[in-house]
Amino acid sequence: MIYLDNAASTQIHENVLESMLPYLKEQYGNPSSIHRYGRLAHKAIEKARKQIAQLINAESSEILFTSGGTESNNTALYGISEKRPNSQIITSSIEHDAILEPSKRLAKNGYDVVYIPVDDKGTVNLEVLENSLSDNTCLVSIMFANNEVGTIEPISKITKLCNEKNIPFHTDAIQAVGKIPIDVKKLGIDLLSISSHKINGPKGIGALYVRKGIDIDPIILGGGQENGLRSGTENVANIVGFGKACEIANLNLSENIFHMKKLRDILVLKILKEIPGVSLNGHPENRLPNNAHFTFLGVAGEDLIIKLDEYGIAASTGSACSVHTQKASHVLKAMGYSYEQITGSLRLTLGLYNTESQIDETVNILKKVTAELRSVSPFKEKYSF
Amino acid sequence: MIYLDNAASTQIHENVLESMLPYLKEQYGNPSSIHRYGRLAHKAIEKARKQIAQLINAESSEILFTSGGTESNNTALYGISEKRPNSQIITSSIEHDAILEPSKRLAKNGYDVVYIPVDDKGTVNLEVLENSLSDNTCLVSIMFANNEVGTIEPISKITKLCNEKNIPFHTDAIQAVGKIPIDVKKLGIDLLSISSHKINGPKGIGALYVRKGIDIDPIILGGGQENGLRSGTENVANIVGFGKACEIANLNLSENIFHMKKLRDILVLKILKEIPGVSLNGHPENRLPNNAHFTFLGVAGEDLIIKLDEYGIAASTGSACSVHTQKASHVLKAMGYSYEQITGSLRLTLGLYNTESQIDETVNILKKVTAELRSVSPFKEKYSF
Ligand SMILES: Cc1ncc(COP(=O)(O)O)c(C=O)c1O
Ligand SMILES: Cc1ncc(COP(=O)(O)O)c(C=O)c1O
Repeated sequence: MIYLDNAASTQIHENVLESMLPYLKEQYGNPSSIHRYGRLAHKAIEKARKQIAQLINAESSEILFTSGGTESNNTALYGISEKRPNSQIITSSIEHDAILEPSKRLAKNGYDVVYIPVDDKGTVNLEVLENSLSDNTCLVSIMFANNEVGTIEPISKITKLCNEKNIPFHTDAIQAVGKIPIDVKKLGIDLLSISSHKINGPKGIGALYVRKGIDIDPIILGGGQENGLRSGTENVANIVGFGKACEIANLNLSENIFHMKKLRDILVLKILKEIPGVSLNGHPENRLPNNAHFTFLGVAGEDLIIKLDEYGIAASTGSACSVHTQKASHVLKAMGYSYEQITGSLRLTLGLYNTESQIDETVNILKKVTAELRSVSPFKEKYSF
Repeated sequence: MIYLDNAASTQIHENVLESMLPYLKEQYGNPSSIHRYGRLAHKAIEKARKQIAQLINAESSEILFTSGGTESNNTALYGISEKRPNSQIITSSIEHDAILEPSKRLAKNGYDVVYIPVDDKGTVNLEVLENSLSDNTCLVSIMFANNEVGTIEPISKITKLCNEKNIPFHTDAIQAVGKIPIDVKKLGIDLLSISSHKINGPKGIGALYVRKGIDIDPIILGGGQENGLRSGTENVANIVGFGKACEIANLNLSENIFHMKKLRDILVLKILKEIPGVSLNGHPENRLPNNAHFTFLGVAGEDLIIKLDEYGIAASTGSACSVHTQKASHVLKAMGYSYEQITGSLRLTLGLYNTESQIDETVNILKKVTAELRSVSPFKEKYSF
């Protein structure tokens, strides 16, 4: 099997699993308990909090555990906006549904939600963003890097605009953390979402960085865990694994970037060279080191994926979540792509465990599969590959 | 070590951990992905959904996965009330904070929240409840069994009242599931909260049973997982473990009840016989088979716990969560207990792995520790033990 869907989820690092096992076995205390079992669980959580903070240069006390990236995003949007009814929220048209769907609800509840457009490379329009900022803006939320096409947004330019006007800035950095260096202090970020399972940690755990001084309301109420900002018995084992995943990502960051970028560049070059009618989408330079997103003219991305799967290759058209909604990519639409271009989408995302020979094999199979599909395509006449 | 805090959290059953491991190792697909990895993860979730449904005699399609019991409770309260602004919510004065805190927020947001009182055994007053029901009631939420004193509430009588008037009924069954047989169909329950880590499953995963025909609004929005009712990449390994835990609990239910009840009865009898100035709190018959909750006059429960911990015994004063709020038990207050009675609280809760010799040892140590603490108690003169 060749797994090229690392933007959807990643394999748990063996040291991560190892770090979790004691908390799935003998260390089963509730972190709120006073006794030894409780204290040990509590201590493990605080260690993980530090590991996560270090990866983005935050303080431990600024890290809030959630059940994943989706909850982190929801917490940022609701948590900030709750205090300012009817205010304005600025986001982009290419955000993940975990931003877009809460935004829609907020719009229904009286908030003025503004979606900043992007260019054909997926970069948000800074001018429109700047002109949209107002005294009524309670939050700007722009993703660090896009999950479909991999474009990295000009975050430092955006935070400069927001910081000047004292407007809280949140970024969905779920695809960016562990793929590019992120320093929340240097960048002037107020809130940042992370998801463990995108960086070789376990699923169902995430964090929201909330800068000291930024005040949020909780979504989930109860026993008062996480300083009252996120109640519920803590997912100790997953928190520990998430912490370890961040520690490993931090230690190996440049090495991992080098590895993914190298394979990604080979993949892109070979595909563009060896398969006709294919183009790379997203920004040519400002893109995640592990992302390759293509349009294969004359074939349907879903057919490609099913065929690749038969050959043991795991790939995607873009957002994994689109399965539930069955809608055409809102990201490519926002980038001005035609229906035909969107249909031919293929996203290949690399991870720690991919090898160069896997890349070669993938290109060979892709060549074959594309030819097969094109030979029976209704667009056969239109293109003469 | 003797672990007698199974109401706070439990040890993961070894077959549960075993069932989880493939999903922490090679089966790391995102359940929303189309390829093989995704399909296998999706299938695993659906199997777990069935296992959970079977434990409470629900349909698989009626089970919604959440990040734990706290989120299940929040989802029930917000999910039902959202559609009926300014309506009435009826709950009890002895609920867990995961019900009381969302209730407070709802009260602040214009809902009329009614707290049904309980008697000195912790049983809700049915007459007050019946008289409180009105056309404006959008939800009745009464816990199945109390987490501190173990009292089981008269759920079938309550559902009868609610069903007659077509008022949705939710129950926080987090302490009851796996401890007593529960049949949601027979009992006429509309919504029911479960938490995995209370029944020898992993932490950070739970479920809300939502009867077919009951319509709820989601709290967390995004990719549309769980039929749009709970977005976020699924915590596959924990879901699988939770399913297994339910399957095991279902298979061994009567055996487990017998085991816990036997040890509990020995524990209670011995303590009441061998240690003076101790009384059992909660209902003498209608109580969870694994719960023993006492008042030790003349000592502080927290001191008892710290002393017991030194001897390797893990115990609690009541709700683990009270650590965060540092407040005296609202449950015992609602039962009419004096400050002194509340101060002397000790909760010992049994689990699958406790043995009779552990019980004997506990009673011996408790006898010693109590005498020690009483010898330096400011109440020394008042009582002559
Ligand atoms: C009755 C009751 N409700 C809710 C909860 C909270 O569930 P969880 O620990 O899964 O957040 C607990 C456990 O602490 C409980 O005992
Ligand atoms: C950019 C982005 N935001 C949010 C999410 C959702 O995070 P999670 O999978 O942890 O729910 C994802 C992953 O699907 C993502 O790629």
